[in-house]
Amino acid sequence: MTKVPAYAAAGPTEPLSPFTIDRRDPGPNDVVIDILFCGICHSDIHQVRNEWQSSMYPMVPGHEIVGRVVEVGRDVVKVQPGALAGVGCYVDSCLACGHCRDNLEQFCEKGAAFTYNGTEMDRKTPTFGGYSTRIVVRDHFVLRVPETLDPAGAAPLMCAGITTFSPLHEWKTKKGDRVAVVGLGGLGHMAVKLARSLGAEVTVLSTSRAKEADARRLGATEFEVTKEKGTFERLRGRFDLILDTVSAVHDYNEYLRTLRPLGTMVLLGIPPAPIPLDAAALILGNRRLVGSNIGGIAETQAMLDYCGKHGIVSDVEVIGVQEINAAYERVLRGDVRYRAVVDVATLTR
Amino acid sequence: MTKVPAYAAAGPTEPLSPFTIDRRDPGPNDVVIDILFCGICHSDIHQVRNEWQSSMYPMVPGHEIVGRVVEVGRDVVKVQPGALAGVGCYVDSCLACGHCRDNLEQFCEKGAAFTYNGTEMDRKTPTFGGYSTRIVVRDHFVLRVPETLDPAGAAPLMCAGITTFSPLHEWKTKKGDRVAVVGLGGLGHMAVKLARSLGAEVTVLSTSRAKEADARRLGATEFEVTKEKGTFERLRGRFDLILDTVSAVHDYNEYLRTLRPLGTMVLLGIPPAPIPLDAAALILGNRRLVGSNIGGIAETQAMLDYCGKHGIVSDVEVIGVQEINAAYERVLRGDVRYRAVVDVATLTR
Repeated sequence: MTKVPAYAAAGPTEPLSPFTIDRRDPGPNDVVIDILFCGICHSDIHQVRNEWQSSMYPMVPGHEIVGRVVEVGRDVVKVQPGALAGVGCYVDSCLACGHCRDNLEQFCEKGAAFTYNGTEMDRKTPTFGGYSTRIVVRDHFVLRVPETLDPAGAAPLMCAGITTFSPLHEWKTKKGDRVAVVGLGGLGHMAVKLARSLGAEVTVLSTSRAKEADARRLGATEFEVTKEKGTFERLRGRFDLILDTVSAVHDYNEYLRTLRPLGTMVLLGIPPAPIPLDAAALILGNRRLVGSNIGGIAETQAMLDYCGKHGIVSDVEVIGVQEINAAYERVLRGDVRYRAVVDVATLTR
Repeated sequence: MTKVPAYAAAGPTEPLSPFTIDRRDPGPNDVVIDILFCGICHSDIHQVRNEWQSSMYPMVPGHEIVGRVVEVGRDVVKVQPGALAGVGCYVDSCLACGHCRDNLEQFCEKGAAFTYNGTEMDRKTPTFGGYSTRIVVRDHFVLRVPETLDPAGAAPLMCAGITTFSPLHEWKTKKGDRVAVVGLGGLGHMAVKLARSLGAEVTVLSTSRAKEADARRLGATEFEVTKEKGTFERLRGRFDLILDTVSAVHDYNEYLRTLRPLGTMVLLGIPPAPIPLDAAALILGNRRLVGSNIGGIAETQAMLDYCGKHGIVSDVEVIGVQEINAAYERVLRGDVRYRAVVDVATLTR
C-alpha cells in the first residue's frame, strides 16, 4: 500500500478537504499513474452532496483523470512508464459477460467498478477518484492519451468527451448532417467541437442570447434562442440529431418536433422530475428519443485517438485544489467556461 | 368517372351509411382494383368521429384493402388484370423528395395523399377509402398480394401488418432475441406472429390473464400480467425490443426498465394524454424509445412477400358492411379477435 494525498468529502454537507488514502501495490496487470489533472464533472457535485441517494463517505471524487504512468505490472503491454494516460468513469468490470465482450464495459452484468463512490469488483474495497496524486488501475481500463494534446484540456475528454462523442458515433454523424446541441456547458461545448469536426452543421439551442459569440467561436454555424417566440415552429423538421445536455426540466416534445423523420434526440442530462412525453411527437415521423451514458473502453480510446488527430480538447479553467469548493459553486452557477480542472500538483504544495 | 357504391360517414356523430362516390377513369399509370375485403382499423373510428380534429366529410374510411386488378393504364407494368392487389394507408406522394427517394413515401415532404380523409396530390380532390367496391390508384402505390394468402386475412397486413413488421425489420429482430409485445389486439396479435416467425422469444405483456391461451396459440412463449405485483421488477433488463401497441395511458418508465442496455421500445399507439418520462430510464442503459408509423411501399411489399413465404395473415372476423356500425362498437370494447374485415361483396347485395 502507498499513502497518497487526496481531497475528500466526509459527508453530504461537508466541504472537500485534505485527506489521505491508500493505493494498492500494483499487481501483474496494474498500471500506476501519477495524476496531473482531474476535471470537475457536475456528477461529482451530485454525488458529494448525496443528491442521487447512493453516496459513500469519505468520498474522493474525480473521473476525468490524466497523468503519467510511473510503474506497470509484469503482464502489462498496453502502456509503459512515461506514457500519458487517462482514466475515466470506471476502473474495472468482469470482462466476461456479454456486454463486456461487446466493448460496453460500463454495462457489465456484474456491475462495473466505478472510479469513485463505488467498490472494486470484490464489492468491499472502496474506490477513490482523481482528486488525489496517484491511482492504480487495471491495464484494460487505462486509456492512452495522445502526447500532442494539452493534458489539462484532455482530462475532461474522459467523461464529457466520450459522453458526447459516443452518440455522434452511434448515430453516424457525417458531413452535412444538421446537429443541434441543447445547452452550452461542459458537455455542450464538447458536443459542438466534435460535431463540427465531423462536418456537421451545428446549431446551438440556448435559453439566452448571451452565449452566441462563444458558441460560434467553438464551431456553431447557427444559434437559436428557445425562449424567443416562434423558434420551435421555425425549426420544425430540421435536425438529424439533437444532443440534449440540459438537466433542468424542459419540454422534450418541442425539441422532438424539430427533428426530421427518423431523426434522433439523445438525452445526456437527467432532469430532477419526469417530463410529459407526447407519443405523437415520436410516432408521426418515426422519431427516436434515446439515452446515452459514457462509452466503452474501445470507444473511449477511439475518441482520444480522434481528438489527437484533430487537436480537440476541452476549454478549461485550471484551478488549485484549494479552490475546489468555490469552483463547485461556480459550476452550479454555470460560471465556468467550460470545465474546471484541478491541477493535482497543487495537492502537495 | 365511374359511380361506385360505398359506405360513408356524413359527420362525426353520424353512423356509416350507403353512399355513392366517383372513381376517376384510369390514367396511363393507374390501376383499377375491384375491392374484395377491407379491414377496420381503430384509426377509422378515430377519424370518423373526428377525434383527431382533422376530419373531412363525407368520409369513406378504409386503408386495409385487398382486391383484384380489373384494368391497368398503358404504362403500368407492376401488376396486370386478374392479379391480387393491396392498397394501404396512402395512394400517392411526390416520388421526388428525399424521403420518397429513400422509400419512405409516408413522410413525403410535400405530404403523401392518404387513402381517405385526405386529398390527392392536387390538394383538392378528396380521397375515399376501401369501404367501397372499387378504387383507382397510381401503380407505385399498389402492392402485390401473394395468391397463396387468404385475401380477407391479408387485408389487415396493409396497416396492422406493416406497422408491426417495420420496427421488427428496422431493429433487426433475429432468432433468439427477446421481444415483448404490449397489448394483444389488432396490432399486437400481428406483432406476436411476425416476431415468432423471425425466431424471437415472444413475451406478451397484458393487463389481464384472460388472453393467455390465445397469446400462446399465436406464438407467444411467455405471458406476463403487468398488473400483478412484482412483474416489472422480475422482468428488469430482460428484453431486446418492446413493441407497445397500447393507446391507453400507461407508465412507459416501468416498461423501459425491462429493456436490456441498448434495447429499444417502439411506440405504436398514441395515448390521449402525455406520459411522464424519467430520463434516467433511458440514460442508465442507453435505452431507446422510438415511434413507428406504417412503412414505405418497398418495405410493405417486402412484408407481403415475407408473409406469403411464411403463410402469415391476420386472424379476422369477416362481417357484412351492414354490420359495420355494430363492429365499431365491438372494436372499441376490444371484443374482436383480432381484426374485423368487411366483405365488400355485401355492398352490392
